[in-house]
Amino acid sequence: MSLRSEIGEQPAAVARLLAEGAADARRLGGLLSRAKHLTVAARGSSDNAATYGKYLFEGLASIVTASAAPSLVTRYGTPPRYGGGAVIGISQSGAAPDVSAVIAAARRDGALTIAITNRASSALARAAEHVFELRCGPERAIAATKTYTSSCVALAMLAGAAASRPLQFADLPQAMREAVDSEPEAARIARKIGSARALVVLGRGYGYAAALETALKIKELARVWAEPYSNADFAHGPRALLERGTPVLILGARGATERETRSLAAALRRRGARVYAITDDEALAAKVDDAVLLRRAVGELLSPIVLVVAAQHVAAHVARRHGRDPEKPAGLSKVTRTL
Amino acid sequence: MSLRSEIGEQPAAVARLLAEGAADARRLGGLLSRAKHLTVAARGSSDNAATYGKYLFEGLASIVTASAAPSLVTRYGTPPRYGGGAVIGISQSGAAPDVSAVIAAARRDGALTIAITNRASSALARAAEHVFELRCGPERAIAATKTYTSSCVALAMLAGAAASRPLQFADLPQAMREAVDSEPEAARIARKIGSARALVVLGRGYGYAAALETALKIKELARVWAEPYSNADFAHGPRALLERGTPVLILGARGATERETRSLAAALRRRGARVYAITDDEALAAKVDDAVLLRRAVGELLSPIVLVVAAQHVAAHVARRHGRDPEKPAGLSKVTRTL
Repeated sequence: MSLRSEIGEQPAAVARLLAEGAADARRLGGLLSRAKHLTVAARGSSDNAATYGKYLFEGLASIVTASAAPSLVTRYGTPPRYGGGAVIGISQSGAAPDVSAVIAAARRDGALTIAITNRASSALARAAEHVFELRCGPERAIAATKTYTSSCVALAMLAGAAASRPLQFADLPQAMREAVDSEPEAARIARKIGSARALVVLGRGYGYAAALETALKIKELARVWAEPYSNADFAHGPRALLERGTPVLILGARGATERETRSLAAALRRRGARVYAITDDEALAAKVDDAVLLRRAVGELLSPIVLVVAAQHVAAHVARRHGRDPEKPAGLSKVTRTL
Repeated sequence: MSLRSEIGEQPAAVARLLAEGAADARRLGGLLSRAKHLTVAARGSSDNAATYGKYLFEGLASIVTASAAPSLVTRYGTPPRYGGGAVIGISQSGAAPDVSAVIAAARRDGALTIAITNRASSALARAAEHVFELRCGPERAIAATKTYTSSCVALAMLAGAAASRPLQFADLPQAMREAVDSEPEAARIARKIGSARALVVLGRGYGYAAALETALKIKELARVWAEPYSNADFAHGPRALLERGTPVLILGARGATERETRSLAAALRRRGARVYAITDDEALAAKVDDAVLLRRAVGELLSPIVLVVAAQHVAAHVARRHGRDPEKPAGLSKVTRTL
């Protein structure tokens, strides 16, 4: 039962990272604040954390932030000029050869390079000039959970330090505990999603990355076609997919996007979709067919780290509804080596 | 029949843009070559063109290239510092308020701003300092075709000019004509995809954006759950979705990724997938269940512009297999205004 236990370990893992990583975050944040641009290299769940990091580095630290296209290094041998900028590589195992290749190219180019990893002795950690260690302890489940949320927290610590405006992390572990304890509500949502072969997952702004990660977890564990979109991108074509009864799972937070998200939920229900939410917004919860309502608010910028914990439970329970064991997802391995 | 006729107009539209836009491309490319970083803002099909542009600007012109997160401007009011860099906004109609908002924020910040649009009198064109006009003539079909390929060509012209290494465009219109004429082969692939409710679309490197655009076209026109991935991202979780008989459509080109793509096609067939390809690589075509083979090569960097034309035919014919009229996709409008 490593998946369930690792979901439960997340509040403690994050509390440890916040305490033990604070000095590293300040030091590296100071270096990052001088970068002219930032690139983040990652795959899979780590790449979803990278998307969350993009919003934080652009919105909080004001640094233009790109996502690496590793094939430009590994297949074409034509990386961009990274010099003058910074490159962060994220890999829980540190064994991702493509991520290491981007970091190595950037380091040769004189860029600031930082590895975010759970293995301080990994190839990625050796490739980068600096290492920011996740300190999660071993992650045994094939689906990443604690390394995902810890990668998000690491990026938030670095972006806050680069902005000289640290985020208010004090309530985060407690709020994540509430999300861990929301498993009964998450299981109820999963029952209502039932055996649908496909669903849409929506998030907006800082919550977009949580939608990406939720959809990936559902794909990995339940083998259901879960498609993630930002509210806006969904309107540009993919909403054609909606049919009467299509389940839509919204990750919504109080803050700058709350009114838009409530309106969208109402509009989707009028179109006949079955709409569910994981949210700290009571007004959104009241507008949907069912919701996991998380009452302990941590602010919109950190909320995706809380919401995604409840979404991990949803994914595991959707898998069970499909007769699949989320502890043993088929056709996947813990470490995937791509170029 | 505006969709079919606009698919057919693409070779002429691109030839016109190459001739009439050459001077603008040289001038703007010179300005872009001095940018410290680049951000591209777009939604929907234009955002898929932006992804293609990212590879060109990073791989050819060596400029770190980010994708804009418009909500940081429109919802949070916290754009990054664009000054010292450049921002390109892409919208065929020029009516996308979110894209215009990013351009306006960047211009206030002193960045170089360029609008790529089919409407020189649009709000986006007015917001940007410079306009690169697509010169496609009106696009009437709801699904973008000629404005998509022309946006890709515009980005290739700009990136080539910024790199002082113009791409060899001479054969492109003729190669696109061959793809327009491949409709019977594309229709045959669509028949074989049949009424599958879901399929995977794969591309790699420069071809990744073509996979994104192909999947979006299939969603819009056929309302089928077409999921696009790069070969590498697919291995990080989503390949769990593959079941015996799942159709996989590969957009593959000769060049740096050809061996990897051929191996992947063979591996997917061994896992029981039905694998189809749109490609200029005869060896890949021989390894799959069926292929649209386009014999006129234009080089790997431009090949996605050719392959996607055949993919437009596939999407339209998959729609017909599902009893949907691709000329009148349900639930969509030509101009989508999001923030």
